[in-house]
Amino acid sequence: MITGTTRLFTIVADPVGHVQAPQMLNEYFAAHGIDGVLVAIHVSLQDLPAVIDGFRVTRNLGGFVVTMPHKTALASLCDEIRPAARAIGAINIVRRTADGRLIGDMLDGAGFVTGLRAQGHEPRGKRLLLVGAGGAACAMAYALAQAGATRVTIANRTRAKAEDVVRRVLHDFPQADVAVGDADPRGYDMVVNATSLGMKPGDALPLDVTRLQPQTLAVEIITQPEVTPWLAAARERGCRVHIGKHMLRAQIELMARFMCGEGDR
Amino acid sequence: MITGTTRLFTIVADPVGHVQAPQMLNEYFAAHGIDGVLVAIHVSLQDLPAVIDGFRVTRNLGGFVVTMPHKTALASLCDEIRPAARAIGAINIVRRTADGRLIGDMLDGAGFVTGLRAQGHEPRGKRLLLVGAGGAACAMAYALAQAGATRVTIANRTRAKAEDVVRRVLHDFPQADVAVGDADPRGYDMVVNATSLGMKPGDALPLDVTRLQPQTLAVEIITQPEVTPWLAAARERGCRVHIGKHMLRAQIELMARFMCGEGDR
Repeated sequence: MITGTTRLFTIVADPVGHVQAPQMLNEYFAAHGIDGVLVAIHVSLQDLPAVIDGFRVTRNLGGFVVTMPHKTALASLCDEIRPAARAIGAINIVRRTADGRLIGDMLDGAGFVTGLRAQGHEPRGKRLLLVGAGGAACAMAYALAQAGATRVTIANRTRAKAEDVVRRVLHDFPQADVAVGDADPRGYDMVVNATSLGMKPGDALPLDVTRLQPQTLAVEIITQPEVTPWLAAARERGCRVHIGKHMLRAQIELMARFMCGEGDR
Repeated sequence: MITGTTRLFTIVADPVGHVQAPQMLNEYFAAHGIDGVLVAIHVSLQDLPAVIDGFRVTRNLGGFVVTMPHKTALASLCDEIRPAARAIGAINIVRRTADGRLIGDMLDGAGFVTGLRAQGHEPRGKRLLLVGAGGAACAMAYALAQAGATRVTIANRTRAKAEDVVRRVLHDFPQADVAVGDADPRGYDMVVNATSLGMKPGDALPLDVTRLQPQTLAVEIITQPEVTPWLAAARERGCRVHIGKHMLRAQIELMARFMCGEGDR
């Protein structure tokens, strides 16, 4: 029941019809007895600053989720940016403080690592291969370096993008073993599909699964379908798999806690 | 269930904790199968323009309810103002068009008249006494003149305020018989308490009920308590009564229809 005392949260997006944050965060609020509601805000990139100015003075706004195409633009609109978001150059969550300051963070990586740990897969001391070098891959590589992974390899068709990811991670974690490499999955503890391959029927596999060793954990961040062709192929090779839903669920909780001002990292 | 396709509506207020619009409009949306949600926006009068600028570019915003202290300020922030709102100098509802224009109206009066009619009390051709000369009284006097009431008398302790109401109504309806008078209820078909007397325990009665004739309809716009001391006293005199809830219910429907772009008057 939404009343005048209900704390407001939003997601800014364009387009907006497909976003899942209202359903997922509102379910989280209900399950945790939080008097909060999250609604979608459809705003173009050009009009984003006006909406953000309005958010600053909306006293019952706790924070907001940021998605396409606003993740980069938000970085210049926040008053404070947390290290992961600064390194990656993108924001996916903002908290509004009581005095109207906006604090931005990027929780893709933290959600990924938290999701792994929730399933008993501690990345500390592990060797990981990330296939893909987009925003999600960058956030994951950063969080893995922070979590103490022994090695993180970034494999991407366009090598320059992988090099950019490595540069961003090393800037904050110069001691980390993060490097560009190829997509050969041999010798890794975990192999992560960080591309969008597998979302659409008929997509190619992100890597050559015939080289996959059965002791390797196959990891996905795509949530629909729940079992992508990559995970199905890995299972056939005898590998354990880690579905995308685990990251999503962890991130929902991190987002809610960040917007509510709890669990500051 | 709020999703990315849910149309957004708000109420702007300061303070905001007590507002009833979220509960009432969301119940209306649910009952009518409208994929919409109304949330409260807590914003100070000083910060209102920034919030309104954000609303203009929020593409999925259908409109918003306006309450204290923003009713007057909104008049200078809308692109178009409907006649009743212009005459009264206050806005209580705004529709956002697809191209971001804001159209303001004041539905207190229309809600009052619609609520009367819904209970079979047609004001056309009737003589009405309104006790009180605040914003609600002004809106009601305007709507009664528009509806073709034979006579509307405004009785108020501060006579200048009653004269202001009369001036505003006559500006748009110069032929109407709207005048300042005293609170003697004799000779009227309907007598309306348009003061706030009756909201708090121990409030004085708005007029001398001993002069009330049994054929007169006693009308209230206060919703809590449902039966005010004025209505109770009128009942004891043998009068029929019209409770404040009728106006409220009618106005909720008018607000929803106005914000959704239907039922343009």
